[in-house]
This record gives sequence, C-alpha cells and structure tokens, in this order.
Amino acid sequence: MKKIVIFGVGLIGGSVALALKKAQPTLGSLSIVGVGRNPASLAQALQLGVIDAGVDSSSAQLKTALADADVILIAAPVAQTAGILASIKPHLNRHTLVTDAGSTKGDVLACALSILAEQAHQFVGGHPIAGAEKSGVGAASADLFVGKNVVLTPTEQTQAETLARATHFWHSCGAKVSHMPAQAHDRIFAAVSHLPHLLAFALVDDIANRANAAELFGFAASGFRDFTRIAGSHPEMWRDISLANKEALLQELTAYQTELALLKTLLENEDGAGLEALFSRASLARNAWSDKKI
Amino acid sequence: MKKIVIFGVGLIGGSVALALKKAQPTLGSLSIVGVGRNPASLAQALQLGVIDAGVDSSSAQLKTALADADVILIAAPVAQTAGILASIKPHLNRHTLVTDAGSTKGDVLACALSILAEQAHQFVGGHPIAGAEKSGVGAASADLFVGKNVVLTPTEQTQAETLARATHFWHSCGAKVSHMPAQAHDRIFAAVSHLPHLLAFALVDDIANRANAAELFGFAASGFRDFTRIAGSHPEMWRDISLANKEALLQELTAYQTELALLKTLLENEDGAGLEALFSRASLARNAWSDKKI
Repeated sequence: MKKIVIFGVGLIGGSVALALKKAQPTLGSLSIVGVGRNPASLAQALQLGVIDAGVDSSSAQLKTALADADVILIAAPVAQTAGILASIKPHLNRHTLVTDAGSTKGDVLACALSILAEQAHQFVGGHPIAGAEKSGVGAASADLFVGKNVVLTPTEQTQAETLARATHFWHSCGAKVSHMPAQAHDRIFAAVSHLPHLLAFALVDDIANRANAAELFGFAASGFRDFTRIAGSHPEMWRDISLANKEALLQELTAYQTELALLKTLLENEDGAGLEALFSRASLARNAWSDKKI
Repeated sequence: MKKIVIFGVGLIGGSVALALKKAQPTLGSLSIVGVGRNPASLAQALQLGVIDAGVDSSSAQLKTALADADVILIAAPVAQTAGILASIKPHLNRHTLVTDAGSTKGDVLACALSILAEQAHQFVGGHPIAGAEKSGVGAASADLFVGKNVVLTPTEQTQAETLARATHFWHSCGAKVSHMPAQAHDRIFAAVSHLPHLLAFALVDDIANRANAAELFGFAASGFRDFTRIAGSHPEMWRDISLANKEALLQELTAYQTELALLKTLLENEDGAGLEALFSRASLARNAWSDKKI
C-alpha cells in the first residue's frame, strides 16, 4: 500500500489513518489523503498529523488522488455512501480496493453493486465494531481497532484476492476480521446494537418530554447513566442506520414489544415466580456474556 | 448513638456499618449488631470487622439487642420487611429510631403503619441511591454513600426530632439527604430506575431465548455492555421491587410502550426528520444530564 484515500476523517476514518501510520514500518511508505465536506475538520486532521493531505470532495485534486489510490475507505455517515461512490466511479483504477466502515451493510452493498457496476467486485463492505461515543478526528486513536472485530461482507462475486486485501487492510489496523453475508450482518446488529440504541433514545425522550423532567433526571443514578450512555450518540448517524436497516430493525422492535408485553402481563398478574424466572434467565445470560468478554 | 441493629448485612447494610465505624471518632462509642438469615454471611461480616456481633433472626439474643438499640436499620430485600417489623415490634423501645434502605417506599411505609401501629411514628423510610451491581458483605465499603443521595420519606405524623435523627444517621454515612412523600419517591424511581432495569432484563431475555443467541452475544460490544449492565442485577431483589412498585411501574411501562410505538411508526414511514428529531431530543437531554452529573 502506497496511497490511501479516506472519505470522512472523523473518529473512525482518523483512527484508521493513525493505525496505518503506526504500522508503516511494516507496510512501507504510505501517503494518506483525507476527503471531507468540512474544511475545518480536514485542516484539523492535517494539523494533528492524521492525514498527509486534505482535499475537498469537489476538488480537481481528488481526481488525481483517486486515480492512483491502492485503497479507498469510505468512513462517512452511511447515507452519504451513494454520493461518494458516484464521485469515485469515474476515476476508479481497476487495481484499487474500495471498502467502507458503515454500521449497516445491505444498503451499502446495494449502492456499490449499482453504482460501481462492472467494478463492483473491487468493493468489500466492512464494519469495525469499535466504540464511538466520542466523535470527530480529535478523538481518533491509533489503537481504536486493536483486538476489536471487523466484519467484512463479501458476496459470491468477490474475488479471493480482493477479500484478502481487505482483510490485510483491517489486520494492519490491529483488528480481528470475520466474514459473513451483508444480510446476516444486518440482522445480527439490528439485535445487539441498533435495537438497544433505539430503546435508550426512547427512554430518554420519554423522560425528557415530561413536565417534571428536571426532578426525574435529578434522581437518576449510575444504572440510568450506563443504560442511557448510547442515547448520547450522534442523531444523524442513527437516523441513517435506522433507515438503512429498517426491515431487520422493525422485526427486532416487534420481538421486543412482544417480550415487554409478556413482562407487563407477569407484573399485572403479580406473578412473582414468572418475573423472577425472566430476571434470572437475563441475569445469568448477561453475567455469563460479561465474564467471557472481559 | 451507642447501639445500632442492622437487619441484612449485605452490600448496603455492611456499608452503613463500615461508614458509621469510620465516623466513630465523631459519633462516640458504637456497637453494631448484625441480624440475618444466613449464619455464614454473618460470620463473614464479623470476621471482616463490619459488625461487632451477629445474631440469628430467631435467637433470644435478638430480643436483648433490639431492646436497647438507638437505631434499627432494615437493609434486607423489601419483601422481608413485614416479617422483620413484626419480629421487632414486641421488643421496640420507644426511643428507638427505625429506618430502612429499601428501593421502594410506599409498600414499606404501609407495613410500618400497620405492624408498628402506635409506634409507627418512630419509623422513617429511606432509600440510599448507591450502586449495587455487586452484592454481599464482601463488597461493602465505608465510602459507598459518600456524596450519594439518600431519600427519606416521612409522613405527616413523623415528628421533627425523628426525622432529624434519621437525617443525622445518613449524614453520618456521608450521604446527602432529601425528603419527599413515599408515593412521589416511588413514581420517580419507577421512571429512572425500575423501568430501565425491566427494559434491560427484557432485552437480554429476548436475545438469550433465540436459537442463535451465542452468535448474537458474540458480536455484542461496548454499547450492549453498558445498556445491559443492570440486567446482571439480583433477580429476587428486582422481583420484590417490581411487585412492590407495581402500579407506578405499570404506568411507566405503558408510557414507554407508547413512545416505542411512536418510534416504530416513524421508522415504518421512513420519516427521517422525525427519527432525527427524536434522537436529537434524547441525545441533547442525555448529554446535558451527564455533563451536569459528572
């Protein structure tokens, strides 16, 4: 790898840049070009040494940068993927690997197939599972992906060499890499990530809209803090994820509504044994998961 | 204060004992008697120096301990409160303050009024808002309550001196003390504590019951970890809290179901602006709360 172009130099894009720079002794000489909508954040990325050059997404320099890139990484909010792929396509060298870091993969893959067309086999979608409660390049870290999972979502058309290059790219950032179809990815993350985000947003909104919200927040403590941490996440990003993964997320919401109705019935019936059984199953599963993870 | 009797020497009861011992230079000579169902945990409390004596809840020594106690603290799961109050009543000195540390206050107050009868004015309910993800006397700490809120729930019959003594008791543990009616307490904590616990239990149970639970848990990351931390809580304790605060909790579940149905409709209609507005309200409120708390 000699030249990497990164669309969106925020927490994720910036951390990839820093991780690759850290791995440079192994990877050899490397030039990282950042592309973004916001000149101020590109200037910040340049000043922090995260990127070697910053170009505006509508500039002529972008054409040159794209033409000889080894890897193009899209690390912008997922709703921008189509526009970015369209801007890449006219300049896409047939040796360039295109990958992304979006939280949903079915919609991104559909964009790549339609927009990159006969060059779609150069694209492999990716999702780094790394915390993102802070955002912006100022929060970027070379170690963000170390030991974390990155899920790649190749298709039957993806060539083995392309997948190997995408795998190597993320391995160079320190990540563990696994592969699965985009649809399977989206179903899994609807359950373990997207649904919990929506549930946390809903709880905080429910409380914030009340006349006595200040009093309620005044007595909220550590359990509330942890439960609602993800409700502090980026609204635009989560709007995009929700819409992009609509079908799987609606299924999850329906399943959760069923579970909640069951719990409510147990409580209405004062079924202590039933409540304790549900809480015990959850508590055992949660603590077993936690013991394994940490 | 010379003699304190504590029913239930776990995390909360044990931490009160340690906090009072730490404050002993100010409080003067103090003897702490622990009462419990489990001889092994009383022995552990004694060995750790948390209590000065441990008595079985059915022993003759208990009678003596109760008769000259300055303060009796009930720090057992709330469903045991009635039985404990009944065992206290025959031996209750008219100068003794009775308080508790239960997470629900309406049910505890009703027990106190009915069981302590003409001596009910000696009782002031309390709820220390202190983290309890670990349990047992081994996790007790003299500093658990430092800077934390304790809500006391006096009634119109509570004498000013009794309330002052209960306030002093919790101040001695390092806590900040506020007062409100038991019913107001239960409504507030249904919203900011009991509901989030039920939501977290429901999510983990929903996932744990699926055929691909292992795969789903395998990809769950830091957002899931924080959201579900409270789902690792004690099932028996949360069964008791749910049943004790049934009415307020059912109202909260209903309000949350309405909010969730609204969110689902926004998603079904692909209403991006509506979703972003809801997420923005939640995100702003959550981050404003968090900035203020920390």
